Amino acid sequence: MNDSRKLPRLPSVKRLPSYLHELKLLRDNQQQMVSTTQLAQRLGLEPIIVRKDLELAGSPGSPGVGYSVLSLIEGIENFLGWNDETPVFLIGVGNLGTALLGYKGFIEYRFNIVAAFDNDPAKVGSTVHGKPVFSIDELAEKAAELQVRIAVLSVPCEFAQAAADKIVQSGLKAIWNFTNTPLALPPEVVQQRVNMAGDLAELSVKLSGKLYNNSEDI
Amino acid sequence: MNDSRKLPRLPSVKRLPSYLHELKLLRDNQQQMVSTTQLAQRLGLEPIIVRKDLELAGSPGSPGVGYSVLSLIEGIENFLGWNDETPVFLIGVGNLGTALLGYKGFIEYRFNIVAAFDNDPAKVGSTVHGKPVFSIDELAEKAAELQVRIAVLSVPCEFAQAAADKIVQSGLKAIWNFTNTPLALPPEVVQQRVNMAGDLAELSVKLSGKLYNNSEDI
Repeated sequence: MNDSRKLPRLPSVKRLPSYLHELKLLRDNQQQMVSTTQLAQRLGLEPIIVRKDLELAGSPGSPGVGYSVLSLIEGIENFLGWNDETPVFLIGVGNLGTALLGYKGFIEYRFNIVAAFDNDPAKVGSTVHGKPVFSIDELAEKAAELQVRIAVLSVPCEFAQAAADKIVQSGLKAIWNFTNTPLALPPEVVQQRVNMAGDLAELSVKLSGKLYNNSEDI
Repeated sequence: MNDSRKLPRLPSVKRLPSYLHELKLLRDNQQQMVSTTQLAQRLGLEPIIVRKDLELAGSPGSPGVGYSVLSLIEGIENFLGWNDETPVFLIGVGNLGTALLGYKGFIEYRFNIVAAFDNDPAKVGSTVHGKPVFSIDELAEKAAELQVRIAVLSVPCEFAQAAADKIVQSGLKAIWNFTNTPLALPPEVVQQRVNMAGDLAELSVKLSGKLYNNSEDI
């Protein structure tokens, strides 16, 4: 990693999986090179944005020739740390948690929910969509054993902070928060919120025509 | 609505459902007034942010007294257009679509998936989590009949654009896009993307310490 490289911007980072997805389709079609223009068209982006985003992958394209598909895939996966499978835990096997355990969309990015945790004795010891459900009291032990650093949080919102505290105490370093509740966390633990209600609010406001400038939100 | 009011900012809009959620808890506890400080604490925000966000609700608080809980709820719901139930359609009854049909978290905000659509003859005519599944060819007719303007899109990504075209032709005005694919839409149709892979990318980058300034992302 080049120290002089600028810090990545959020919209660029969030677009990288879309590139990865398209590039893998091209790879599977035996296409070896890809131009900025082709990627821009497939993703509905301006070529200048594509060129800027792909700087993160550290794989400069050649004018008139484009990028090597395989090098780009490798560059993006390296940048994101997605070369290896990332094991994650899911906390809270309710309605949403069960849905997430059955969702196969994360596997493309090598995120694998390896176990789930709940405090309901009726669920502990069971298997949901092939994943074992442990007691929340086993979280620290299992995190150390399986070297898991990321928790998907899908408990009812009134238990969100208590569950987050438990996750922090158990030594995990990141929470992907599917609850409605923002979490208070120590600075060394990162949080990513899936704010579906916030998305609905944004959609409602866009639909009503009370718009703000939003061109970067892709 | 005051015409001189500035256009709402995206982070404020996305936070409104969290206020709504907290305010309803207070209402259910018979609390009639709430201070900026109390809301700020419950949501983990700075009081100045809370004051700014709640300007959208058009319900000014009184110094030393705070806000009326009921007025704030009404103001936020008015602003978002969430006073009445919003009927929505779901397109694509696969793994994720089925999960979304069973997810009860949208009801708090009066979003109700009233029907689902698919092109698989084995699914058409069935009921999933109590919701009827129609053929995608019936979309225009049902949208007119049930006055639905919003579609939740959860088809496999290779069919995303074709399904989006069908949604647009059927007269719907907004797509909540759960696929990995950005959609090309006419300007009068709004799109809201749930970019879960993008969230995972952001989480990975935060975890690796390659951070950008991100204080507004709540």
